[in-house]
Amino acid sequence: MEYVTARYIGKKPKLKNPLLIEGLPGIGNVGKLAVEHLIDSINAVKFAELHCKDFPPQVFINTDGTIKLVNNEFYYWKAKKKNQRDLILLTGDYQGLSSQGQYELVEKILDISEELGAKEMFTLGGYGLGHEIDKPEVLCATTDKSLVKKMKKHGAVFKKNEPGGGIVGASGLLLGLGKLRGFNGICFMGETPGYLVDPKSAKAVLKILIKITNIDINLSALEKKAREIENIAHQLQEMEAMSSKDKSDELKYIG
Amino acid sequence: MEYVTARYIGKKPKLKNPLLIEGLPGIGNVGKLAVEHLIDSINAVKFAELHCKDFPPQVFINTDGTIKLVNNEFYYWKAKKKNQRDLILLTGDYQGLSSQGQYELVEKILDISEELGAKEMFTLGGYGLGHEIDKPEVLCATTDKSLVKKMKKHGAVFKKNEPGGGIVGASGLLLGLGKLRGFNGICFMGETPGYLVDPKSAKAVLKILIKITNIDINLSALEKKAREIENIAHQLQEMEAMSSKDKSDELKYIG
Amino acid sequence: MEYVTARYIGKKPKLKNPLLIEGLPGIGNVGKLAVEHLIDSINAVKFAELHCKDFPPQVFINTDGTIKLVNNEFYYWKAKKKNQRDLILLTGDYQGLSSQGQYELVEKILDISEELGAKEMFTLGGYGLGHEIDKPEVLCATTDKSLVKKMKKHGAVFKKNEPGGGIVGASGLLLGLGKLRGFNGICFMGETPGYLVDPKSAKAVLKILIKITNIDINLSALEKKAREIENIAHQLQEMEAMSSKDKSDELKYIG
Amino acid sequence: MEYVTARYIGKKPKLKNPLLIEGLPGIGNVGKLAVEHLIDSINAVKFAELHCKDFPPQVFINTDGTIKLVNNEFYYWKAKKKNQRDLILLTGDYQGLSSQGQYELVEKILDISEELGAKEMFTLGGYGLGHEIDKPEVLCATTDKSLVKKMKKHGAVFKKNEPGGGIVGASGLLLGLGKLRGFNGICFMGETPGYLVDPKSAKAVLKILIKITNIDINLSALEKKAREIENIAHQLQEMEAMSSKDKSDELKYIG
Repeated sequence: MEYVTARYIGKKPKLKNPLLIEGLPGIGNVGKLAVEHLIDSINAVKFAELHCKDFPPQVFINTDGTIKLVNNEFYYWKAKKKNQRDLILLTGDYQGLSSQGQYELVEKILDISEELGAKEMFTLGGYGLGHEIDKPEVLCATTDKSLVKKMKKHGAVFKKNEPGGGIVGASGLLLGLGKLRGFNGICFMGETPGYLVDPKSAKAVLKILIKITNIDINLSALEKKAREIENIAHQLQEMEAMSSKDKSDELKYIG
Repeated sequence: MEYVTARYIGKKPKLKNPLLIEGLPGIGNVGKLAVEHLIDSINAVKFAELHCKDFPPQVFINTDGTIKLVNNEFYYWKAKKKNQRDLILLTGDYQGLSSQGQYELVEKILDISEELGAKEMFTLGGYGLGHEIDKPEVLCATTDKSLVKKMKKHGAVFKKNEPGGGIVGASGLLLGLGKLRGFNGICFMGETPGYLVDPKSAKAVLKILIKITNIDINLSALEKKAREIENIAHQLQEMEAMSSKDKSDELKYIG
Repeated sequence: MEYVTARYIGKKPKLKNPLLIEGLPGIGNVGKLAVEHLIDSINAVKFAELHCKDFPPQVFINTDGTIKLVNNEFYYWKAKKKNQRDLILLTGDYQGLSSQGQYELVEKILDISEELGAKEMFTLGGYGLGHEIDKPEVLCATTDKSLVKKMKKHGAVFKKNEPGGGIVGASGLLLGLGKLRGFNGICFMGETPGYLVDPKSAKAVLKILIKITNIDINLSALEKKAREIENIAHQLQEMEAMSSKDKSDELKYIG
Repeated sequence: MEYVTARYIGKKPKLKNPLLIEGLPGIGNVGKLAVEHLIDSINAVKFAELHCKDFPPQVFINTDGTIKLVNNEFYYWKAKKKNQRDLILLTGDYQGLSSQGQYELVEKILDISEELGAKEMFTLGGYGLGHEIDKPEVLCATTDKSLVKKMKKHGAVFKKNEPGGGIVGASGLLLGLGKLRGFNGICFMGETPGYLVDPKSAKAVLKILIKITNIDINLSALEKKAREIENIAHQLQEMEAMSSKDKSDELKYIG
């Protein structure tokens, strides 16, 4: 087994000028939620798995009692209409744990995407604000200046010097190493508090993707999940408020 | 020396459809205790040692003043009865320290096992509960759905979504990477508080192995060790109780 | 992509007995500030980029919304006068994160410099004092004893056993590994408190370089930056003083 | 440069059945002190340097202002009398930082020693007690049971199950990996508090080496250094006592 190993399921798909869309775990799990939802919604087909020696040495346990080695997974989808494009979709359980692992993994993702004819990519992630946000905007960064204008038209936002620390992880590195190979790409970052998984932010990202890709994505499952998470968040806030009240009661009593 | 090096002691054993049983250090040392006890009980024969650059740079000191480089060790045992199978047994001082080390080590274990004809494995470990337990159950996870039913008959337990974090370490990775090579396998996890080495949990695991493998394993040494550990645990609890009592006495005095 | 990859921009420059000058991020960012200022001041030309798997997996975002993969960058400059020398200048976003990364990166820097004919180098850095300093001196260390006298003439300082811990990082390793290849070199370390980026210390380093290299370097931009940083430092000190005053007020009130 | 690189100074020495003696930095720096003292005392000749990508990226600064890349160094010494043996001596600035680094470094040390004809080694280190000790004993561990008796005659001590954690680092790994190549070896561990560098413990180790190797080693420099360290230790203790007294005075004042 190489450092990163790709295993194809059946034949390699034949795709026409496909667009790579990546969403791996990260802040608020925004990118992973968005791509997983997209895969489910359009019935994309899994065609390859990546295993990497820099992933944790771990298996998950499925509900039927069988195990699943942690991995990254490639899916494809073929355009149904003239104004759509073939897609390669990437999601997974982990990003590489170390710098070297990240570089190796991203290089392999680019190898496979290039082999299937991709020269463009969207990478999806979250932009952690550290505070609650009502209507998350979607920040952007691109490999090429000409893409900035286009994306603004679709509602994506460019804020000067944000994110200040740049983009750390696969979403950034795919653009960075991809650019060196001649890929064009855009990273979409949904604003998120960053405390919990954030389907609301993922929805904001997908809404822009719908406009750009002309693909119908049913967002109802994501909206349902967003309401569930909001309920959990409210409960956590109430528990905290209760606990502060208890403490102030105690203080009065002591006083 | 390669990253992982196997050194055979004498000739490679010739085995007939052997079953690999692994037990390396981990939570409660359940897997290691079980396999070491099994090796002693059936007089299995050591045939290979593994050294790995991801093990600590360490030697142990034997009681006679000689040193022993930390390693993993392979043993074999040949079936005595028709309803038994040849065994390959693996135990050792350490698992790999890093992710890469774990992957490399497990790949080498699979290489050697495959070469000796194994296509099936049991991996043994502990499932840390974080609280005392009277009668530890043995949880299971498998590479194949058909094995779930079989194992339930023998008393193994499948709890939905447990362990929640999956299986981390060699016991999980052997199943995960083994499955990719066509191995079938089962991971047996004895419930354990996880505070001390846990021979009671190891005994629970071996009891199920006895049923499945039709091998007589004398559990008396393990039971003796379990009583010793229970005594130590009781002493620790008493010491803690004493120390709490001291503190409450002090508080009274201060008050 | 290799562990360290060099990408040339256009043709390799043809240089005559060039001098390598390195300034990467470090204490007070003294080396990086100095070399960046030098590059701007003399209009040096970028000719190569280094990417390394031991850099963080990160892209920065430019003000126009495009991304830039973190890297190290090589520039060159051709002598304008008889008493000057061709220069190779190295700066960048990061040093290697791990020991191995540092060794690999420095070896690649030496490979490229050697190929372009360099046999001498200046490495620039900061020497952290942990306290404020009015007039930073510039400490030196060299590959060769004969260089010590020369440097003293130009105002560089040699203090016995300073820095006590030697030089850690690229500035030291370039001298160390370079010496093994027959390079001569000098490390210039500007004294710095080490709390903030320190243009004043960078200026002190450049002042010596001006004397040695006979290159006119306009220091006004660096002086402006130094005043800005001093203002920030004063504001921070005032805020701290205010906050201490508040506390003492509070204390009085409580008392 | 390879992961570990050996650079010979002049020709490789021709030695007759040489004995390798290793002393690298460790607890109380006992091994390093002992071997450095031995090298000085017998005027051993440096013949090779090892550099390793797992050493810190660091140069030290010599008193004349020149730099020295951190390394390990090999020396040799030729027997002067019939009852003596040729020696290979190894000391250095660092051990490998990571497990892999330690394994690679030790393999290279064994390669070089084997090439020069060595089949036996002494490795020197400290055994940290965590408390003061008046007359440090020298504990031993060996590759071979027959060596235990021999060493006891010379005053070395074997304590059952001590050190409890075995030997971690180059001194242990040299025995462990050396044994796999057919080397015989002994690790001598001088008891030491482990707080400061410990020339007294190093002296205890050398006293046994003198008996075994029939080499005259002048211990006076080491004894002088031991007295200096004892003075420092006493001063530290007095300062601590003073500071405790101050505190109790303060308490009285407050009370």
